[in-house]
Amino acid sequence: MEQEHNIELLKNRLAEISDLNRTIGLLGWDQQTYMPPAGTENRGHQIATLQQIAHTKLVAEEMGRLLDKLQPYAAQLDPASFDACLIRVARRDYEKETRLPLEWVEEFSLVTTAALEAWAKARAEDNFSVFQPHLEKILDLAHRYAEFFAPYEHVYDPALDIFEPGLKTRDVKSIFETLRPQQVELIRRISDHPQVDNSFMHMNYDEQKQWDFGVEVITKMGYDWKRGRQDKTLHPFTISFGLGDVRISTRVYPNFLAPALFGTLHEAGHALYEMGSDTELDRTPLLGGASGGIHESQSRMWENMVGRSLPFWQHFYPRIQEYFPSQLGNLSLDAFYRGINKVQPSYIRVEADEATYNLHIMLRMELEIALLENKLAVKDLPEAWNTRFEEYLGITPPNNAQGVLQDVHWSSGLLGYFPSYALGNLIAAQLWEQIILDIPDLTEQIREGTFAPWLAWLREKVHRHGSKYEPQKLIQSVTGSLIDPAPYMRYLEQKYRVIYDF
Amino acid sequence: MEQEHNIELLKNRLAEISDLNRTIGLLGWDQQTYMPPAGTENRGHQIATLQQIAHTKLVAEEMGRLLDKLQPYAAQLDPASFDACLIRVARRDYEKETRLPLEWVEEFSLVTTAALEAWAKARAEDNFSVFQPHLEKILDLAHRYAEFFAPYEHVYDPALDIFEPGLKTRDVKSIFETLRPQQVELIRRISDHPQVDNSFMHMNYDEQKQWDFGVEVITKMGYDWKRGRQDKTLHPFTISFGLGDVRISTRVYPNFLAPALFGTLHEAGHALYEMGSDTELDRTPLLGGASGGIHESQSRMWENMVGRSLPFWQHFYPRIQEYFPSQLGNLSLDAFYRGINKVQPSYIRVEADEATYNLHIMLRMELEIALLENKLAVKDLPEAWNTRFEEYLGITPPNNAQGVLQDVHWSSGLLGYFPSYALGNLIAAQLWEQIILDIPDLTEQIREGTFAPWLAWLREKVHRHGSKYEPQKLIQSVTGSLIDPAPYMRYLEQKYRVIYDF
Repeated sequence: MEQEHNIELLKNRLAEISDLNRTIGLLGWDQQTYMPPAGTENRGHQIATLQQIAHTKLVAEEMGRLLDKLQPYAAQLDPASFDACLIRVARRDYEKETRLPLEWVEEFSLVTTAALEAWAKARAEDNFSVFQPHLEKILDLAHRYAEFFAPYEHVYDPALDIFEPGLKTRDVKSIFETLRPQQVELIRRISDHPQVDNSFMHMNYDEQKQWDFGVEVITKMGYDWKRGRQDKTLHPFTISFGLGDVRISTRVYPNFLAPALFGTLHEAGHALYEMGSDTELDRTPLLGGASGGIHESQSRMWENMVGRSLPFWQHFYPRIQEYFPSQLGNLSLDAFYRGINKVQPSYIRVEADEATYNLHIMLRMELEIALLENKLAVKDLPEAWNTRFEEYLGITPPNNAQGVLQDVHWSSGLLGYFPSYALGNLIAAQLWEQIILDIPDLTEQIREGTFAPWLAWLREKVHRHGSKYEPQKLIQSVTGSLIDPAPYMRYLEQKYRVIYDF
Repeated sequence: MEQEHNIELLKNRLAEISDLNRTIGLLGWDQQTYMPPAGTENRGHQIATLQQIAHTKLVAEEMGRLLDKLQPYAAQLDPASFDACLIRVARRDYEKETRLPLEWVEEFSLVTTAALEAWAKARAEDNFSVFQPHLEKILDLAHRYAEFFAPYEHVYDPALDIFEPGLKTRDVKSIFETLRPQQVELIRRISDHPQVDNSFMHMNYDEQKQWDFGVEVITKMGYDWKRGRQDKTLHPFTISFGLGDVRISTRVYPNFLAPALFGTLHEAGHALYEMGSDTELDRTPLLGGASGGIHESQSRMWENMVGRSLPFWQHFYPRIQEYFPSQLGNLSLDAFYRGINKVQPSYIRVEADEATYNLHIMLRMELEIALLENKLAVKDLPEAWNTRFEEYLGITPPNNAQGVLQDVHWSSGLLGYFPSYALGNLIAAQLWEQIILDIPDLTEQIREGTFAPWLAWLREKVHRHGSKYEPQKLIQSVTGSLIDPAPYMRYLEQKYRVIYDF
């Protein structure tokens, strides 16, 4: 009885914190969609006030007492049960949050606000020195952050753990060290073969029609419009305000088909994951994704493994030709398929193809680790970036704006975030090999535009669990192995062997 | 020094409460504009959680102590100063909120949620008995609410004070008793004269063009799009998220010109008021309007005194004819002007003309008072409604759906709200007589589409003060007299004498 009462109290507290966090999300969504420009200052205050309240509620002594009291109860439960997972995740969040001194949190906020502005200026002026002192402060904050979680096996572990709970730097390094030479070799082989043509991607495409086609596709995928909506934003994103309200955004360029087409699929992949949690996870910290990597596995699977596959376009190509007869009417499916899969080393991560993308990530993670290990000084970062870029991708960025300054992440204090992007690709391929075993005619189904059995599989195996399990545990329970680069390399090899005829 | 510290602490606390209340506003705005349907349940939780937190912060013991400590400081200040007003309004809010027991607040929330649903059903089925037991509960809550504020001069005072701080039932009754026979007599005289034709209002009007014309007009009025935006909603409203973000909404009917045309003007009038507060009022409880009546004076002034005036249309009529040449191209300005000012007793308050509108309000206030005084039973309300309606407006509602069940207010527990609508009309006319003295060529300016000097006058005299002063005090300081029905009657007489040729 006593414990039933305590678990009820815990759930109520967590539900309030969830309400606050989802509301902070809405304040941000509105800022990126419909807020008039002069609303910025007050919006900043509103977000800060709610964050402060959410923080206070999470680190409250009463929360600690409640979690302590519930420890013996949790120990008796099946570790996979809802209550056990809830207590475990709540304790993890509580302990992480209580280790952060308020001064650090406030300094982080001030430093990153200034850094974001300096980064935008530095990138616009292609002048790294404008950003350098800010990045030095951010690195100092990251060092101090790591120390709050000492002892650690590796100084990068605490940062990584924010985005990939339970994963260690050692594991990720080992995965990437296996993967990197294989991806470098694959790109080399591709470059020995005649290049494909994707000039059709850069013709004029009516923006409304691009929007409409994207909506048609994700509706067929299973995106539930009663529980979501799509808006236009500068940077596309997915955001959940609870199980009944998972919104996506996209951007549409008049002269480039890729952002709206593949970006919409990408965000819908995230959204389907968010929409797929079990109902009991709503208003708890278990709602949503298990990690950044698992989340990316869902978005990249829809965007690339399916959205850039031949069966998918065997179904949708006649349809997109109806939308854009003058641009695509005389282009063969085969030429379209090859074109959307063109491999070419390029400077900008977010525009990279599937074969080169992970190299952009590995480069970043290696530099982040070198900075945190004090083996690289911030002032030497541009040179280190360019040297490594040449080594992995065979080209050297013409300037820092297209090199070390391209991403917003570091200016926002997000060290440890990049690996999730690459891990997502690997996890997607692992899941895919498993799905194919369980649904042998999946390719045929996709060719017919049937996505329901596949989505049901993802729901059952991945989505419904939310963040109940750590990513490695989840992947192991579904595929039988930990995160492994082999399936992704098999996928790339098979795909590009056909496209580049080798 | 000590008091400087205390006033800082108070301002910080009030700023947080303001952030919470503005955020609750955004949760509501989003619900009425873009939220997908399945978001309702979580949205309810989010709003309830934030309301609970805002309430807790307002009634906190520390808030009471701070206000007590600041009392001697406030006593030394100029009562019109920012700090004095802030302390006074904060104390008023604090004392009102602390008098409400949490059980009452929770019961009110439960009862009104159920009542709203029952009312919608009752109205749809034209069956008062479905709503009756709910209204009885609401009346009981209203009785108990009044007792929390005992002793009172009149049982209706505490309800009225929510919307018109400082105003007494006695004052409003006296105003309305002067006004009512004059308005009844005016309608009688109008009905003796040939009716004007407004059939052009009900032609087909392209919805986008209606929207565009409204935007053009309110832009010229001074609505600042950097600090606002307009969206479509079922019920139009104005909402502020701070001085830099004051949004309006409108509705557009394809076969009726009035809602978009005059509704947009109405909401822009509210918004200009909200946008006009002094900067130092932002993030304090002084931001926004002094009372419901003062707020309505601003919206009704733009909508009716100007928006339905001849000089206004001397400027805009050629423009609206360009928007709608087939509907209005052959209609004279004079016919248009008379048409938009047609007087005809009708059943529905929100569709009522300027000459009959206040009678709808007086009827409601009198019935609310009779209910609270236990002189009328809820079950007898429909009959009382119809009897009085016949007496004031000369017609009897054909059913309860178009009679006693037409408004949402009672089902939401809003007793005491209606008087503000009529007071707003009176206040608008009082302000207008003063403006005309200060800006003698105002009519000429409006005829030329020049609104800046008039808006500047409103800003200086009314808007910038936010809710620093109680409504009677504000009106007296601007016009030299308390709320007075005479200017409104003069306004109506002059206007309709021309339109109906008497």
